[in-house]
Amino acid sequence: MLRLDTSSDVPLYRQLYQHYSSQIEQGQLQTGERLPATRELAGQLGVNRTTIAAAYELLEAEGWITGEVGRGSFVKARGARKAISWNEFMPPAEPSRRLGAHPAGPLISFATSRPSEQLFPLDAFRKSCEEVLTGPGLAGILQLGSPGGYEPLRQYLLESARQEGVAGPNDDVIVTNGCQQALDLLCRVLVRPGDAVAVEDPVYPGLRNLFREAGAELIGIPVGQSEAITRHRPKLIVATPNFQNPTGATLSLAERETLLRVPGAVIIENDIYGALRYSGEPLPTLKQLDETGGTILIRSFSKIAFPGLRVGWVIGPRPVIQRLIAAKQITDLHTDQFSQAVLLQFAKSGRLREHQEKMLSAGAERLRAILRACEQFLPVGSTYSRPQGGMNLWVELPEHLDAGELLARAQAAGVTYLPGRHFEVSRSHANALRLSFAGLCEEKIGEGVALLGEVFSNEFAMQPMEAVV
Amino acid sequence: MLRLDTSSDVPLYRQLYQHYSSQIEQGQLQTGERLPATRELAGQLGVNRTTIAAAYELLEAEGWITGEVGRGSFVKARGARKAISWNEFMPPAEPSRRLGAHPAGPLISFATSRPSEQLFPLDAFRKSCEEVLTGPGLAGILQLGSPGGYEPLRQYLLESARQEGVAGPNDDVIVTNGCQQALDLLCRVLVRPGDAVAVEDPVYPGLRNLFREAGAELIGIPVGQSEAITRHRPKLIVATPNFQNPTGATLSLAERETLLRVPGAVIIENDIYGALRYSGEPLPTLKQLDETGGTILIRSFSKIAFPGLRVGWVIGPRPVIQRLIAAKQITDLHTDQFSQAVLLQFAKSGRLREHQEKMLSAGAERLRAILRACEQFLPVGSTYSRPQGGMNLWVELPEHLDAGELLARAQAAGVTYLPGRHFEVSRSHANALRLSFAGLCEEKIGEGVALLGEVFSNEFAMQPMEAVV
Repeated sequence: MLRLDTSSDVPLYRQLYQHYSSQIEQGQLQTGERLPATRELAGQLGVNRTTIAAAYELLEAEGWITGEVGRGSFVKARGARKAISWNEFMPPAEPSRRLGAHPAGPLISFATSRPSEQLFPLDAFRKSCEEVLTGPGLAGILQLGSPGGYEPLRQYLLESARQEGVAGPNDDVIVTNGCQQALDLLCRVLVRPGDAVAVEDPVYPGLRNLFREAGAELIGIPVGQSEAITRHRPKLIVATPNFQNPTGATLSLAERETLLRVPGAVIIENDIYGALRYSGEPLPTLKQLDETGGTILIRSFSKIAFPGLRVGWVIGPRPVIQRLIAAKQITDLHTDQFSQAVLLQFAKSGRLREHQEKMLSAGAERLRAILRACEQFLPVGSTYSRPQGGMNLWVELPEHLDAGELLARAQAAGVTYLPGRHFEVSRSHANALRLSFAGLCEEKIGEGVALLGEVFSNEFAMQPMEAVV
Repeated sequence: MLRLDTSSDVPLYRQLYQHYSSQIEQGQLQTGERLPATRELAGQLGVNRTTIAAAYELLEAEGWITGEVGRGSFVKARGARKAISWNEFMPPAEPSRRLGAHPAGPLISFATSRPSEQLFPLDAFRKSCEEVLTGPGLAGILQLGSPGGYEPLRQYLLESARQEGVAGPNDDVIVTNGCQQALDLLCRVLVRPGDAVAVEDPVYPGLRNLFREAGAELIGIPVGQSEAITRHRPKLIVATPNFQNPTGATLSLAERETLLRVPGAVIIENDIYGALRYSGEPLPTLKQLDETGGTILIRSFSKIAFPGLRVGWVIGPRPVIQRLIAAKQITDLHTDQFSQAVLLQFAKSGRLREHQEKMLSAGAERLRAILRACEQFLPVGSTYSRPQGGMNLWVELPEHLDAGELLARAQAAGVTYLPGRHFEVSRSHANALRLSFAGLCEEKIGEGVALLGEVFSNEFAMQPMEAVV
């Protein structure tokens, strides 16, 4: 029995501590058993509750018990388990840089390929939400859904794709958490270790890392040199024909044709930026040009509307979509249904179309601004792409400059970007950098490129003449 | 030049068709080139626009061109590509049954482990949405987020876990698309082909299929026989100590201790149903009992609130969470941020707690109802589990009955369930079935089990006496 000695020099809370720790040590109190509640024990022993609390605090600090607010204190397991050495337990991983996920603070940031949140049509979003919240289907939307996607959205996407001519009678659609998950599911279903997969070089690192992790043998093909692919006999070709990330390049009709002629290869067409054409004539998608119907097309609401809602989709031959649905089921059951319903409302109501027009006119202005600034401020010997849409422009500095090494200096000057290295597949892009212009207003674009031009030109001027030649 | 012969017997649209198809055949019109707009061509040729439209329709039907609404008609590629044989291209897959994803129509369905949508607190959900929609952070929520999760929600989850005593100083948290994605990411990070992974047998098929597809060697351990695990020397143990799916079983403290004593194994504790205890004293989690801090805990809002919003989370040692975040980044960038913000609001406002109480009282009633009905209606020789919480109860019929074979008869009688076969790992559960009771009101539960009892008892009675013994 527990008795406290009030005449002892040992404080009461300490006596309590000794009592319980020795009971635990001797096994009289077993792991997981609950100690009396502080109030209860204080009453029993006729002492203040804070005394009990102090004893329990010490027991917890010393690792004898574990406390749960509202549930009580439990005896902890001791010594039975060895701590896991995680570095040994998990195979080593490349340190992953979280590209595009973190705002760059007070810097003028060309680092992230995403829309400007100043352009978000918040009222239109609120309205779409409210329509879903007051609609009759709300409870069903909040209930467990189907791995293929929220059925009304699926039907809408398929119907739109049919009207546009990008979905044939043998195609179906699956809704995914944006294009990234579309690529991930395709990787799961189509790629086995050792498979040869042709990708653009430079390429979006989220795509490269995913296929690499799946064990694919990546073949980096310079953008626009599609005819080089055939001799590699790839199983898959992943291409972004419109406003590619990072180069901003658009494949010509002839290049699209060349891709379609690679024998035996399935094409995954990443059309994530396709809805953001600022100039030039629209070209048919690979999916439309592919008379076999075998091309797999990926699209998303993320670049045109709200990236924080993760909703994209895949249009492809029914057997492929069926397999993607099975993979989706074990991956995460289904995509968030509330966001699917809201985006459907946003699209069906015409608000998406309206917003797209604003995005197109803002994008066109921003593109003009960055081209103007590049022309004016980049050092002699630099080249840069002239995108017809999308969010990214690719700069190649004179060859002896290293955009990665210059980044710290650029940041010190108040501007940031992603060095070409991030996008490498098999060739070096050390002298290149990506400028994502869609998230910045014209003024910031001009200011930012001017700062970059200064940093690069200073470096350029500091090189000995021989090096320049 | 294109000239139509109005005196010819060949209809004008047919002449147009012949003109264009031969131009394409001879390569004068190249793949991807655009045909003139119908209005323009009608004007040029001085014919009716419907004539042009008819010709284009025929060209499209015959596969010469492809039409895009609002963009025009383009020459299609011909004969260059061979159609993909998808069955050869993709490795064969087991046909995936979409368990739990489809409502069963007019049947009384015990087939899906999900909350009843009649209990959804729609007004509380609407209120939480409106608070997010009118809050100052809306644009940021709709912008691209962080792979670890929406920071305010992460902080809230971690703080709550610390207060509860389930997160220690070395733990961190990642938000996932429900528990299913938590398991998927853990599988990616921790499992290599050939790894021994101990799971309960029977077990939730979404867990079994995932680990199997990752190449794990699954060791099925009967629920409550944890001491059998050690000799298999598993690398991982995946356990659901509270109200396991499908058995409804809860591990005793001693069994939890036994799991923690398996040397060298990392434990993944799936606590998806933990917040739904209807009776009995709460027990500490494995994570709390594990003094090394190495146990990885999975939880979710899906069973307690809205499964259609895909938000769950993992609490675990920081090195593991860091790797999960890297995996999440290439999987789908991050979980839907609007739903994260709404669920945070739902939890912080106290509405979740309020709803949990309603769920607990409804769950307790439903559990009592199904136990009562099982007692009354199941045939002699049946046994069934007596869960203290969660959504599922496990029935074992007399051994010679096959719950899979009886399903069609049950459905004909107006009731459905999932046969034990769905949950098999290494032992047969042919005579067993899972009854998910949380989604049905008491009346339907009684009615449904009565119907099942009738079907099973009829079958039971039809067996020759020898077979019964």
